[in-house]
Amino acid sequence: MSTSTEQTHHSLIAGEPVPGTDGTTRAVDPARNAESGPEFSLLDNGQVAEATRAAAEAFADYRKVGPEARAAFLETAAERIEQAGEEIIADAMRETGLPEARLKGELARTANQLRLFAKVSRAGDHHGVRIEPALPDRKPLPRPDLRQRTLPLGPVAVFGASNFPLAFSVAGGDTASALAAGCPVVVKAHNAHPATSLLVGQALSTAVAEHGLPAGVFSLVHGRGNAIGQALVSDPRIKAVGFTGSRRGGTALAATAAARPEPIPVFAEMSSVNPVFVLPSSIAGGDTGGRDALADGFVTSLNGSAGQLCTAPGLLFVPEGSDGDDLVTRITEKLSAADGTTMLTPDICSARVEAEKTLASVDGVDELGRGGAGAGENAPAPAVHTTDVETFANTPRLSDEVFGAVCLVVRYTSADQLPSVAGALEGQLTATLWIDTEADADHGAVRDLLESLELRAGRVLVNGWPTGVDVGDAMVHGGPYPATSDGRSTSVGAGAIERFLRPVVYQNVPASLLPAPVREDNPWNLTRRVDGVPVVAGEEENA
Amino acid sequence: MSTSTEQTHHSLIAGEPVPGTDGTTRAVDPARNAESGPEFSLLDNGQVAEATRAAAEAFADYRKVGPEARAAFLETAAERIEQAGEEIIADAMRETGLPEARLKGELARTANQLRLFAKVSRAGDHHGVRIEPALPDRKPLPRPDLRQRTLPLGPVAVFGASNFPLAFSVAGGDTASALAAGCPVVVKAHNAHPATSLLVGQALSTAVAEHGLPAGVFSLVHGRGNAIGQALVSDPRIKAVGFTGSRRGGTALAATAAARPEPIPVFAEMSSVNPVFVLPSSIAGGDTGGRDALADGFVTSLNGSAGQLCTAPGLLFVPEGSDGDDLVTRITEKLSAADGTTMLTPDICSARVEAEKTLASVDGVDELGRGGAGAGENAPAPAVHTTDVETFANTPRLSDEVFGAVCLVVRYTSADQLPSVAGALEGQLTATLWIDTEADADHGAVRDLLESLELRAGRVLVNGWPTGVDVGDAMVHGGPYPATSDGRSTSVGAGAIERFLRPVVYQNVPASLLPAPVREDNPWNLTRRVDGVPVVAGEEENA
Repeated sequence: MSTSTEQTHHSLIAGEPVPGTDGTTRAVDPARNAESGPEFSLLDNGQVAEATRAAAEAFADYRKVGPEARAAFLETAAERIEQAGEEIIADAMRETGLPEARLKGELARTANQLRLFAKVSRAGDHHGVRIEPALPDRKPLPRPDLRQRTLPLGPVAVFGASNFPLAFSVAGGDTASALAAGCPVVVKAHNAHPATSLLVGQALSTAVAEHGLPAGVFSLVHGRGNAIGQALVSDPRIKAVGFTGSRRGGTALAATAAARPEPIPVFAEMSSVNPVFVLPSSIAGGDTGGRDALADGFVTSLNGSAGQLCTAPGLLFVPEGSDGDDLVTRITEKLSAADGTTMLTPDICSARVEAEKTLASVDGVDELGRGGAGAGENAPAPAVHTTDVETFANTPRLSDEVFGAVCLVVRYTSADQLPSVAGALEGQLTATLWIDTEADADHGAVRDLLESLELRAGRVLVNGWPTGVDVGDAMVHGGPYPATSDGRSTSVGAGAIERFLRPVVYQNVPASLLPAPVREDNPWNLTRRVDGVPVVAGEEENA
Repeated sequence: MSTSTEQTHHSLIAGEPVPGTDGTTRAVDPARNAESGPEFSLLDNGQVAEATRAAAEAFADYRKVGPEARAAFLETAAERIEQAGEEIIADAMRETGLPEARLKGELARTANQLRLFAKVSRAGDHHGVRIEPALPDRKPLPRPDLRQRTLPLGPVAVFGASNFPLAFSVAGGDTASALAAGCPVVVKAHNAHPATSLLVGQALSTAVAEHGLPAGVFSLVHGRGNAIGQALVSDPRIKAVGFTGSRRGGTALAATAAARPEPIPVFAEMSSVNPVFVLPSSIAGGDTGGRDALADGFVTSLNGSAGQLCTAPGLLFVPEGSDGDDLVTRITEKLSAADGTTMLTPDICSARVEAEKTLASVDGVDELGRGGAGAGENAPAPAVHTTDVETFANTPRLSDEVFGAVCLVVRYTSADQLPSVAGALEGQLTATLWIDTEADADHGAVRDLLESLELRAGRVLVNGWPTGVDVGDAMVHGGPYPATSDGRSTSVGAGAIERFLRPVVYQNVPASLLPAPVREDNPWNLTRRVDGVPVVAGEEENA
């Protein structure tokens, strides 16, 4: 079972199919380099306004929906996606070339993300309530009654990623967190996976209808190229943008958003090489599982999903000397036994091939080893190149992201070189240290390095591989520019809801007009700050 | 006592006077339209880098200073400013034309703001700690140990406001919140009050030295015109910008920041007309103190500080009919007895005079009344013009800000017109309703209006005047564009610290390397979320 190829499919605006007037498209099966699946009509730029109008209308009511109703809606959405799971995975395999196991895991994650935000909605901490009751006798001036809460920004435009057709796409993290915040969402479907997008969009629309929410809470638009994205971001009804993709794409949308008469925030997750620093102690012994485990873990992390993960390790710092040589040898061996797998699109594959050629052409960079090409089209061999730390430090483009299973191994002579090398890196999603946690002697240099890395990354790991993002309360998937366009927020984890909110304070507003979160009787049972002190929900009596 | 006029004064970089190489300037006493006070040397754009370099160096240590030490520093800064209070106020009166009582109040507020952020630093909620302990047995995958906290962004550039030479200037809200967050600050002194700036800057530098902090934690730079501001915002060491001033100025800095190789956030507080909606019921009777009190309160709010407050009421919506006529008559009477006072600078005064002429020249706008001109130069008479709601709705420029004591009274025929009028307004710092809180019959229309206004303002008031901002835990001084360039934050109140922070998560980082806020023993005694549930400081045992 998958999307019917008998008919032309359309954008889904406020629950209804809307034929586009700008021609049609089909997905490409990257494993065969051939068009596949049904035809999709494409919206003209002007037609985008139908979705944003519906979203703006829906916002008036949706923003006022209480925590329980919003949570129940998100849970139904998760359930409907799971129910359509078989069809979704069939279409996603055909459209992305990703293997079934990976897509099954991603579908589970997508549903779990929606459920996480249901939980976030119920807990309600994101309402950010701060109350200062009136002090009529305060000198020199009385204090008015002040009650702060957050409000959702308004309709949000979401641009799905090619590399996570589920977890960072139509019902992905940006959509889930925006919906939880009270923002209607208009998703621009990624043209690499239109059928997958439609099936997920239908599941979401079904949930909207089942819960009697305004239909404009969710729309999915199919359109040609970048112009429709620009039209969406330029639309005055859109109040924020979530994007996962290339640095060029994210930068272009941010520029459009900044040039609007009313500029809006763009949360673009764009580019990261995820440096991994292997300290000498971690090869020599300790608790890291030994050099075989290190080499194994590295190749698995590099080559998983054809290296098309935002957190794939693109830079590996390995010490000079026999221990380092030994690790590199084992990496080369493991790599030679690894095969490539089909990449997401022919364009992504050719960009990766070109980027590797550019890397290899730099003076002082040598190929260290490679695996085999995969079966089918667009499945280049995973590859590792190497250089020394001086060449690396003097050649800024060696830290440019190569999207795919290509890593540069940088050999350093002393751990003391690493803090300054780290200090020259651009912003990253992740930065990783491999150390011997028992060998305290190491920790002076390690601490300096960690302090350098925490300033440049959204996530700092010790003795693990950066791929694999645990979705929960504490995760940060973000980081300074260009990892993201706005390092002050995260696109994964409970904190993602905060990017779509702003504070407002009510001064001397009578009880009958106050919104629920700031009412004296606390009907939503929120944890709130009163006079600056947190009062945990349900514990008011003890406070 | 005030700043010595015998010598030329200089920028204060990392505690040391640094002579500028781009000529000199003097302040203008606006009450006399004459230069006054000492000469100040101006930095060349290139010299700005001395301050940003010192700030970047200081950041490495200052960001790690603990909550108590940071709080004690801010409290000393407050004390040193109070100790220099007499000199500061003497210079500020001469440089700004503002009266002594107002400046005394502002100095007290400035010190209180610093003390508020000392309290915020001690409470430490802004560290935003979220902990998810490892779950090695979780299926299908174990959960790593995850510990999230916030980090300061880095050195911040602050541009002081002309209209609050103390509370929104050198040691104003932006500086206090950035320092509390752990960010060194480089202040661009406002050329309208250089001596005031220097005295406050010296007090801050003294506090830095007394607490043994790196000298680059604070610098004050004097420079010519806008170019030095652009140089400061373009400097790669600067990681965020706080600005209070004109829409043109804020927009220019935001454009510069967005065009950097590494774009940075700009928090600009720019433009607001602060609409006030007088509902019929509030004139007819109820609890608002009667029409005399309404007229009195309005004229006081409009004319205070020569109307040069970001929250001054620039639009007053009054019903047609005899009650509304009566209110307008009383306003006109009160106004005729009110005198202008000296404005901050000759330029600000002439801009205000021109803006009023433009307003008065609109077809359908009539002068309603005015007060008298003040003694001395640059003290135009406060003035009120009027129009009908249709003219207002059809003439967007009637909602442009006039910086000064000029208000447009808009007469409406029915309260039902107000939600759509409100819906067409740009973002505002404040929006105010005057209602009879007892007359429930009113509340249907009032609720619609309030719901329209909360989407457009950072603060919604009932039965008060928007001037006068209570500095505390719950205040929001912000709002959608163009009230601010980033409505997701506030420039006043405890929440202001959050704009200068970003989250980072530590994954499986061993205890010996963890920073204090996320350590298991919670040495800073912070309220933290564990598995998504807030655990209040000191109550861990009971949890």
